[in-house]
Amino acid sequence: MDSQAFPPFSSLIALTGVTPAVARLPLENISSLAKGVYRDPGIIPLWFGEGDVAAPAFIGEAMARAVADGHVFYSAQNGIPEFREAMAQYLGGLGRKPIEPDRITATTSGMHAILLAMRLIAEPGDTVIVIDPVWPNAGATAQVVGANIRSVRMDHGPAGWTLDLDKLAAALDENVRAVFFASPGNPTGAMLPIETQAAMLDMCRARGIWLIADEVYNRLAFGLRAAPTILDHAEPEDRLLVMNSFSKAWAMTGWRLGWIVHPPSLGPTLAMLTQFTTSGVATFIQHAGIAAVRDGEPFVAFIRDYCEVGMRIVCDALEAFGRVRLGPRPVAGMYAYFEVDGMPDSRAACLELLEKTRVGLAPGAFFGPGSEGFLRVCVARCEGDLREAMGRLAGALG
Amino acid sequence: MDSQAFPPFSSLIALTGVTPAVARLPLENISSLAKGVYRDPGIIPLWFGEGDVAAPAFIGEAMARAVADGHVFYSAQNGIPEFREAMAQYLGGLGRKPIEPDRITATTSGMHAILLAMRLIAEPGDTVIVIDPVWPNAGATAQVVGANIRSVRMDHGPAGWTLDLDKLAAALDENVRAVFFASPGNPTGAMLPIETQAAMLDMCRARGIWLIADEVYNRLAFGLRAAPTILDHAEPEDRLLVMNSFSKAWAMTGWRLGWIVHPPSLGPTLAMLTQFTTSGVATFIQHAGIAAVRDGEPFVAFIRDYCEVGMRIVCDALEAFGRVRLGPRPVAGMYAYFEVDGMPDSRAACLELLEKTRVGLAPGAFFGPGSEGFLRVCVARCEGDLREAMGRLAGALG
Repeated sequence: MDSQAFPPFSSLIALTGVTPAVARLPLENISSLAKGVYRDPGIIPLWFGEGDVAAPAFIGEAMARAVADGHVFYSAQNGIPEFREAMAQYLGGLGRKPIEPDRITATTSGMHAILLAMRLIAEPGDTVIVIDPVWPNAGATAQVVGANIRSVRMDHGPAGWTLDLDKLAAALDENVRAVFFASPGNPTGAMLPIETQAAMLDMCRARGIWLIADEVYNRLAFGLRAAPTILDHAEPEDRLLVMNSFSKAWAMTGWRLGWIVHPPSLGPTLAMLTQFTTSGVATFIQHAGIAAVRDGEPFVAFIRDYCEVGMRIVCDALEAFGRVRLGPRPVAGMYAYFEVDGMPDSRAACLELLEKTRVGLAPGAFFGPGSEGFLRVCVARCEGDLREAMGRLAGALG
Repeated sequence: MDSQAFPPFSSLIALTGVTPAVARLPLENISSLAKGVYRDPGIIPLWFGEGDVAAPAFIGEAMARAVADGHVFYSAQNGIPEFREAMAQYLGGLGRKPIEPDRITATTSGMHAILLAMRLIAEPGDTVIVIDPVWPNAGATAQVVGANIRSVRMDHGPAGWTLDLDKLAAALDENVRAVFFASPGNPTGAMLPIETQAAMLDMCRARGIWLIADEVYNRLAFGLRAAPTILDHAEPEDRLLVMNSFSKAWAMTGWRLGWIVHPPSLGPTLAMLTQFTTSGVATFIQHAGIAAVRDGEPFVAFIRDYCEVGMRIVCDALEAFGRVRLGPRPVAGMYAYFEVDGMPDSRAACLELLEKTRVGLAPGAFFGPGSEGFLRVCVARCEGDLREAMGRLAGALG
């Protein structure tokens, strides 16, 4: 997200023939660190937002059945009616305000949901506010559509990660088209209080700005059935887009399936944008998703517990490390995000830790300005691996 | 692609809060016609580019095996090495100039390949030349990234559909960033002579313009193993992007898998653009693709013959219809594209034909300016259905 680090646009255009917006894109992300050692079994990979548990077998069986049943032709652009209906039932079943099927569009991953949202509402000259620290792809997607990103950083103090609403209000000038936030957060593991989210929606309403909420970690709130959602405080035609994914709660990272909850009036436009980006999600993968929400509740509970246990192991270790400052423990999600004393370059630190300890971590630098002193560790992994990893890190961070 | 038909931008922005480029997108395409009657078994659906044959079972089995083998986690952004290697071998095996694996990126459909290409090289203010008649999504994708489309229409005469290179040269002003063409063509079924394609590449080279070639129907050239490709006349670092898909030759429309052949230097940029649009293609679907190119040659030959037989049946009928002018028969692909005397509105004609004959056709209007008098029919269907459909159409078009 740091465009200053790149050569001036013109030289890059001359070099590659790509647009200025594309030339500004970072050519490095978390996977760049993993390059070359990705399949090395000696490395404990805690860098990605991906655990070591595969989706349960019944999901693959539902997909195979759908293929055998002939669901192998072009799909409906917003998703097949069965998928939209199943998602509406699933969301309603969480004890919330009902969401009608015409507000749900299937997407080729949560990532694609964010791309569709940014593509819908932002273009060159527009500004998208990104509440960070946050998953780097959110801001990068705004860059892909040519928009400018403005960071509004959460504060990190005794109460954990908190958002100063006055800081947000001050950032909302006339060029701002959208505010993006994630709750529960990646990398922070913090939940924005629902009163804060409602105040954000009010601010956006007053200015005709879109609110984009990333709820990918919604089912991984420890001790809760699901994290509170801004959808419960919104009207169907509010300028609100809520993205979600099957990657985390159902461990379906490799299946590329997500969804977006949107105003019903945007359904036809999202159908066309889907048509012109991927033409829709494979029907048999939508059937895998239907099986996941219908029969996956025990698995979701298992994954939530798995992350909670992993979080305890990791935080117990981090809190004992002399150079680490964690603050209040994360209440959700699959990451611990911590500050390291005397670490000027988080990327270099990750490469050094990788070499010395063979543990893969993600550098704070990717999660927004001001995050350089931090590292992220994924806790969605078996106890043995996590204890081994923390043991290896003790020498460098202890 | 006819933006004049829409209300002025400002009113649409006020209405929906979306960007001008998105507000300009057509909200109607071929599937709009099919809406509501999509699953009606009484209709013979010849409107889409999709036949009635499903991909062979071994492809689904390869996918199921990949799931069972645990290929269900995040994938490599350009595609897994095995996929890129398999595609390089496949392309080399067609008797052409070798393509190295680092020039191949897996995409979530041919559609997504075109989106990535447009996103790479065009932005608001740029112009993309579209050689038409052509699949409407090509131009729409340029619109999605905010670029202007300029049509260069092929001529239709005794020699079939031909491209006047002088007309193309005259259209290449300083705002033009790319020229998009498809050979074999959709809807025309025409192949651009390889000398014409080479001349187009020369023109683009001289001006630093990108050439984007859609080769989705490359394996469906009647009497040929494969249609000639411009790749045989290009250098790896030419500004050339060639898109392809598993949808047609392997009947994998519903699997959402394609690929792009690109300069090796663009690999890292395409990885990032993939990351920020879909994060990559499901690994198990890439394994389905590997099986398709490794073991699918008999099936490709079957589908080519199937289309050739269908084309004969349809053209025999069309040539006997009094109101229809077809010209030389298509030499490739899965469509016949024909002019109808006294048909001022192809969309209205399709709706009327649908109601009266229950045969679904695609209106010329979608395929570019000047195509209003035409209709497209898909011939990739069993003999019985095609004869029945042409019999029903005889009353209206005969």
